[in-house]
Amino acid sequence: MKTLIKNGTLVTASETFQADLLLADGRIALIGAGLSADGAQEVDAAGHYVLPGAIDVHTHLELPFGGTVSSDDFYSGHKAAAFGGTTFHIDFAMQAKGERLQQAVERWNKKAADKAVIDYGYHLGITDLNEAILNEIPEMGRAGIPSLKLFMAYKNNLQVDDTTLFRTMLKAAEHGLLVMVHAENGDAIDVLIQQARAAGHLTPEWHALTRPDWCEGEATGRAVALAAVAGAPLYVVHVTCAKAVEAIALGRAKGARVMGETCVQYFHFSVDNLRQPDGAKFVCSPPVRTAADQAALWEAVRNGSLQHISTDHCPFLFDGTRPIMYEGRPFQIPGKELGAGDFSKIPNGLPVIEDRMPILWSYGVGQGRISLNQLVALGCTNPAKIFGLYPQKGTLAVGSDADVVIWDPHKQKTWGVNASHQRTDYNLFEGWEITGLPVKVFRRGELLVDGDRWLGQAGTGKWTPRATHAPVL
Amino acid sequence: MKTLIKNGTLVTASETFQADLLLADGRIALIGAGLSADGAQEVDAAGHYVLPGAIDVHTHLELPFGGTVSSDDFYSGHKAAAFGGTTFHIDFAMQAKGERLQQAVERWNKKAADKAVIDYGYHLGITDLNEAILNEIPEMGRAGIPSLKLFMAYKNNLQVDDTTLFRTMLKAAEHGLLVMVHAENGDAIDVLIQQARAAGHLTPEWHALTRPDWCEGEATGRAVALAAVAGAPLYVVHVTCAKAVEAIALGRAKGARVMGETCVQYFHFSVDNLRQPDGAKFVCSPPVRTAADQAALWEAVRNGSLQHISTDHCPFLFDGTRPIMYEGRPFQIPGKELGAGDFSKIPNGLPVIEDRMPILWSYGVGQGRISLNQLVALGCTNPAKIFGLYPQKGTLAVGSDADVVIWDPHKQKTWGVNASHQRTDYNLFEGWEITGLPVKVFRRGELLVDGDRWLGQAGTGKWTPRATHAPVL
Amino acid sequence: MKTLIKNGTLVTASETFQADLLLADGRIALIGAGLSADGAQEVDAAGHYVLPGAIDVHTHLELPFGGTVSSDDFYSGHKAAAFGGTTFHIDFAMQAKGERLQQAVERWNKKAADKAVIDYGYHLGITDLNEAILNEIPEMGRAGIPSLKLFMAYKNNLQVDDTTLFRTMLKAAEHGLLVMVHAENGDAIDVLIQQARAAGHLTPEWHALTRPDWCEGEATGRAVALAAVAGAPLYVVHVTCAKAVEAIALGRAKGARVMGETCVQYFHFSVDNLRQPDGAKFVCSPPVRTAADQAALWEAVRNGSLQHISTDHCPFLFDGTRPIMYEGRPFQIPGKELGAGDFSKIPNGLPVIEDRMPILWSYGVGQGRISLNQLVALGCTNPAKIFGLYPQKGTLAVGSDADVVIWDPHKQKTWGVNASHQRTDYNLFEGWEITGLPVKVFRRGELLVDGDRWLGQAGTGKWTPRATHAPVL
Amino acid sequence: MKTLIKNGTLVTASETFQADLLLADGRIALIGAGLSADGAQEVDAAGHYVLPGAIDVHTHLELPFGGTVSSDDFYSGHKAAAFGGTTFHIDFAMQAKGERLQQAVERWNKKAADKAVIDYGYHLGITDLNEAILNEIPEMGRAGIPSLKLFMAYKNNLQVDDTTLFRTMLKAAEHGLLVMVHAENGDAIDVLIQQARAAGHLTPEWHALTRPDWCEGEATGRAVALAAVAGAPLYVVHVTCAKAVEAIALGRAKGARVMGETCVQYFHFSVDNLRQPDGAKFVCSPPVRTAADQAALWEAVRNGSLQHISTDHCPFLFDGTRPIMYEGRPFQIPGKELGAGDFSKIPNGLPVIEDRMPILWSYGVGQGRISLNQLVALGCTNPAKIFGLYPQKGTLAVGSDADVVIWDPHKQKTWGVNASHQRTDYNLFEGWEITGLPVKVFRRGELLVDGDRWLGQAGTGKWTPRATHAPVL
Repeated sequence: MKTLIKNGTLVTASETFQADLLLADGRIALIGAGLSADGAQEVDAAGHYVLPGAIDVHTHLELPFGGTVSSDDFYSGHKAAAFGGTTFHIDFAMQAKGERLQQAVERWNKKAADKAVIDYGYHLGITDLNEAILNEIPEMGRAGIPSLKLFMAYKNNLQVDDTTLFRTMLKAAEHGLLVMVHAENGDAIDVLIQQARAAGHLTPEWHALTRPDWCEGEATGRAVALAAVAGAPLYVVHVTCAKAVEAIALGRAKGARVMGETCVQYFHFSVDNLRQPDGAKFVCSPPVRTAADQAALWEAVRNGSLQHISTDHCPFLFDGTRPIMYEGRPFQIPGKELGAGDFSKIPNGLPVIEDRMPILWSYGVGQGRISLNQLVALGCTNPAKIFGLYPQKGTLAVGSDADVVIWDPHKQKTWGVNASHQRTDYNLFEGWEITGLPVKVFRRGELLVDGDRWLGQAGTGKWTPRATHAPVL
Repeated sequence: MKTLIKNGTLVTASETFQADLLLADGRIALIGAGLSADGAQEVDAAGHYVLPGAIDVHTHLELPFGGTVSSDDFYSGHKAAAFGGTTFHIDFAMQAKGERLQQAVERWNKKAADKAVIDYGYHLGITDLNEAILNEIPEMGRAGIPSLKLFMAYKNNLQVDDTTLFRTMLKAAEHGLLVMVHAENGDAIDVLIQQARAAGHLTPEWHALTRPDWCEGEATGRAVALAAVAGAPLYVVHVTCAKAVEAIALGRAKGARVMGETCVQYFHFSVDNLRQPDGAKFVCSPPVRTAADQAALWEAVRNGSLQHISTDHCPFLFDGTRPIMYEGRPFQIPGKELGAGDFSKIPNGLPVIEDRMPILWSYGVGQGRISLNQLVALGCTNPAKIFGLYPQKGTLAVGSDADVVIWDPHKQKTWGVNASHQRTDYNLFEGWEITGLPVKVFRRGELLVDGDRWLGQAGTGKWTPRATHAPVL
Repeated sequence: MKTLIKNGTLVTASETFQADLLLADGRIALIGAGLSADGAQEVDAAGHYVLPGAIDVHTHLELPFGGTVSSDDFYSGHKAAAFGGTTFHIDFAMQAKGERLQQAVERWNKKAADKAVIDYGYHLGITDLNEAILNEIPEMGRAGIPSLKLFMAYKNNLQVDDTTLFRTMLKAAEHGLLVMVHAENGDAIDVLIQQARAAGHLTPEWHALTRPDWCEGEATGRAVALAAVAGAPLYVVHVTCAKAVEAIALGRAKGARVMGETCVQYFHFSVDNLRQPDGAKFVCSPPVRTAADQAALWEAVRNGSLQHISTDHCPFLFDGTRPIMYEGRPFQIPGKELGAGDFSKIPNGLPVIEDRMPILWSYGVGQGRISLNQLVALGCTNPAKIFGLYPQKGTLAVGSDADVVIWDPHKQKTWGVNASHQRTDYNLFEGWEITGLPVKVFRRGELLVDGDRWLGQAGTGKWTPRATHAPVL
Repeated sequence: MKTLIKNGTLVTASETFQADLLLADGRIALIGAGLSADGAQEVDAAGHYVLPGAIDVHTHLELPFGGTVSSDDFYSGHKAAAFGGTTFHIDFAMQAKGERLQQAVERWNKKAADKAVIDYGYHLGITDLNEAILNEIPEMGRAGIPSLKLFMAYKNNLQVDDTTLFRTMLKAAEHGLLVMVHAENGDAIDVLIQQARAAGHLTPEWHALTRPDWCEGEATGRAVALAAVAGAPLYVVHVTCAKAVEAIALGRAKGARVMGETCVQYFHFSVDNLRQPDGAKFVCSPPVRTAADQAALWEAVRNGSLQHISTDHCPFLFDGTRPIMYEGRPFQIPGKELGAGDFSKIPNGLPVIEDRMPILWSYGVGQGRISLNQLVALGCTNPAKIFGLYPQKGTLAVGSDADVVIWDPHKQKTWGVNASHQRTDYNLFEGWEITGLPVKVFRRGELLVDGDRWLGQAGTGKWTPRATHAPVL
């Protein structure tokens, strides 16, 4: 099957130029001027931009969490992702206590295999490290899962101590895997949550007040230092504040091989949103911060202190007491109402997988905060390189997978729960005006999204192994 | 005429991938896999890299200076450039006192037209500003010369005062031109030179001691501030020291639209070289500095504080009392010996136009200081974008001029005056070992360099107009 | 004459302790516990603080300016100063074009001699430098005037070029004098003012908009750099903004011997005050800035980047069309109304000499921004040391001049034009609540202020020579 | 008993002036000019400086450590301190596992009571925190021990986790106590030590290589963050490196109430000393670092990022297999030879209590790195303020304890084990030339040291309670 995309303006992380693009056998076959169809399906992209399919390295589909489960599975999440221009994601296969890593992968395979539409990979979420697990790490890298995540927060649950983190870094560095951290000081946060609850402070804003930016800043600095000593590359997930950005930038300036991401929601929301009556909608960890932190994040993605903008997509229903309709059928699971009387019981997470690229297009590029090339670098190419997918994914290069998005820069929509495909009952960006949207989305040359039409089929997305020893950007 | 470059690894500012490249009618026509020749000349680039031709935005060919003239003209300089992988440069058309800008351009055209081999453009060197000249600036921009250089140094000669600089910035900003500055405090330097000479300090090291880094740092900060107030983009040429890098980085962090370049020599030489018996060989302005400054420059090109690495190529003979042979004929003009007894009379400038990319390849990429993509960004793509040449020049995109260099990453050479083609009697990098060199160099699809063979012909290089309102990187 | 101050809490730049203090023959004679009067006048200071008389190194009394003259002379200004706890100041003897420095001093002596009540000294305001003036500098230092001020602003008027500034620094450094600068880029400001006026922007806020902080930041950095190269100590007057603070702090960190002051008004007012109907009241140069700049200034005085808080006292009537009563007689001269239709004609300057210490007490110490010891360091001891007055002035040490202020920390007053003694028709701090005020002020042991009573006599204040080679703090 | 010190130059943290000083009843009674003896013992201090007795807040006398005990007890350590101009110190009463804090204090009292010569206090070394201990903290503060130390290093031994540290901070803040931390990441260090030993890296330099500066920098940043969140003041002991200084400076700039000390040895020694054959002599924790770190420490004490210079005095014999003579009797205990074959077994600690002030005088003040006032601030006054001793100790104020040192700025000595009184067999500063030494040392008015004569008597030193809620400098 061949598709010829004609007259579009191709955009990569560094280039913007007009050319035709031939997709053949699931790959990018040819980039040229005035190409002829030659039996290919022809698509006219005049006036439109042609981008690589976006990559989201931070998602949690069908994740059990605090008495419920995240409301998008590998089908609904993939559909939403594709409508937003995202054609690849990496989910976290979370080790259960006592479990081998391979078992976690197998559990995740079961969730994904029959449902997947876009391609995907896994990170390993390490929660229980011993010698056997340490020795399993190299195997997992060789098997195409070369990234590990550890939690410095969630005391008595996911949190690991510094010995565990440091030993994992040493092992990962030796075998070319990348260590990722959720960087917040869980010890202090745990005490603060207990204090707040004891004092009767139970509303959603206390979710933020018990997770101060100092705790994220220090944990980030700690991870950077341990990585520098271990000689290991490090990737800090969901950076939310100026203090954490500073820790990364200082580390990089001193030669530490550290990278990081923020998520699109951290540019746009603050503790003020948590003070709204529907504040629970905005509860995620680390929490949304302040306007000054938002400005620091924009600066960080511009100057290369952070390399990726992901989503940490982990949606819940706002009101799990009422069913919603999804693809014509009712859908109902417990949601944010679980924490109605106690902020510490609100399921942590937000729906963002679809919103990300359209919001970045309109409010990032459209408002002059980043260039179009930076959008591609941050949303597509950098994550492919960092996570061992390049050049298979993340760019428009000959030989790369034909994951391609055609954007109409003039298409307008009022964003919101009705305009998006995430399986939940609310949207963070309700009522925001969008100018510039995907109009066609290809995955390995197959058209998944055509305007408002959904052509994707469950089970066609492929788990994609990734390479060890990826570069540090 | 068509050329098909097969099996090479294409490198752009963000991508590295294997593909074939078809050059047709002077442009890049096609990028694809397994392309067939179809009447094209076929070149096998297996095991080699394929890069865009490099751009050097800072050269002085045949420049009159202190009783002599720079020893490369538009033929010899172009030949040397091409052998080093550079296929485009921008020279400075220097306004004489009382002269209109157009007259300076015409004088430069006379130097260039019959000799040029690679393509080229001009910046305007403003030395005498009045209302008429101010009004000529927009015209020059429309005519394809959208960049102006002013000197904050060279008291009583080229130096302009802040009123002139600021008014030029306001005018340039209004019409989409870019202001460039040579940033050193000429007032202080002039006093220091007088003091040094009065004290009998006459050796080449005093060239550096009378031009302290503080003078460059402050002038850079001053230019940044004036540009920020004027709302003008700014480009600081030949940044040499940590203090100037800091001024640029702080300016950018505060929202000033400022960019800058360093030159390859500033990474590698220091005031110690000026203390050698042949110290005059290393005399240029600003002077070579210290090891700490070199480290700051590497960091600056890595983190994007500086966007380009140029040469400030302005060669002189070291010993103008002896003729050298050039293309079989003797060549002799006065040289660095003019300042044998007085550092202030040494012609300022160095031969670098050919050395730049091979040195950066071996000592930048080869030693892990920058990546191959960063080399292309810094040497090719960024200058094209900043100076209004993109996407015609500076990249490997469909439709771009077929300025292409094939590099053999394994080719070795001991560098030095005998290995290079610059028309002078010495080389800064004498005896340095190089691994990785251009083996074929195309300019608009024509082969100029084939291994050691020179195929270029005088008069075939084209003056290339550039666009106003180029982006700020 | 002897005075014994009993039971007070003595405060110096580093100490706070209870002791009795004996003043004898104009000096501090004894510090002890349980001292007995022995013929001395006894003053009970129980519950009060005993501080050194404050020093203000930046005032302009009876200064001709733009068609009028500053409204406080050496009598009224001294009276106001004393009521505010200030017992020494340094005024600027301004060289007229063509005048020798000694002549400027003589003119100033005529203004001061018969009127002075508190002690005083001069800085030399250099406006016209030539070889003769350069050679006069060392003489002036030996004669007790070891500080020089140069203006980087006021184009075509007071402004000097960098050659003049740098040569003065070299000369000053050689002979142990201190160079002071008004640091704003006068070239750019001049162009901006012309532009604003041409565009019909004539209201007071344009005074600030035509003097952007970038212009102050760069000029500060420039002065720091020139001083560093000259090996000269530098003192930057009236620092107003974060950018200038940064320039000083960076200079100090790199080993430049640079110091600076801010003025109390810059902590409290902003461009918003210029937008008020009576905005002209707040017109001074550099202009009042932003809340962020105010915060940076507080931080700078706390961390030692700035060493003194002065006033730049240069008062004008707000409405010079109406006489005011001063000591029972009408007083009228042209005032701020001169610039009613054109901000550039508003006399530049503010009344602050009396307000300074009470405002700093209530809004600095009282609000926890600085400690009481820091107040003494910033207001009394540091300026004495920096300007060659120490230990004669600025501290409570045995042998020092008995310039002593007794503060009642509980005394309250609503501040304003009626509560203060500055000879003008308005007060910047109108209606502000003050807690903590001087109740007795001694100058060389003589009581000048006793509660609300004024005991000072014109002509008793002494010009005080100062030492060269003072330390750099 | 009265002593009149005549004609000296008094030095405090901010003042330098000539005056006579009367000591009476153990206190400073009078500061004046031309005082007469009046029955007092008269001491002529003409040409000499008169300083407050120095304070050392970081010592370990008679501390059990790794199979031996530190070699100075409360007699020999006090004698050495006094000869070096130190008249007060604070030792660490170390809680044993399971012990109540009061018990630790009692154990320490037994060591000190009969031997003490100079005055002293305790910090509490917390090693085993539970609810009972947490509740004991306020009591201890009220009893005059308002400072607590916790260890972030020494895994499985003294190290506390972040929950313990944070809870202690909350409690301390509530009751006005000060938390002190030994800031190194013990988890990582423990792994590194195991690795090094497993690899056969056993020489003293590995003591430094297994404790990289990153580990100290991060732990410092962590403590700063936790203190900021807890609203607690923090004091970081023995800061050794640029990274830790940066963490403190950044914390202070962001409003954290954090202070710190370095120790005199960290200015002068580096890992190179550990590579000497007698490297074990220099083994302490954190380790000595690099020349760049030394420069950062000097800058930090100059600019107020660090407030005190202490010693961490914890001496051992270098060669415990040979007895030394002390006051005419042999003295022998195991020493550094315990770690002859394994760096991790070398007793950690150095002899410095006597060397500190003379070395700072000659190599700090004498070489222009700090001023004499800064020496007094850093060595005497700041620690008194920070630790609740002011104004009883640390200054020359009326009413303060008459702890006074007369320094002869011209007295010279070649330093070394024979010139000093520390009870060990080596001196870090062996052979260093000293100019400027104490010639008389008074403790509460009693002469302890008179030239080379020792007049001190065991058991006359007093434990001195300290106040809670001391200021943060």
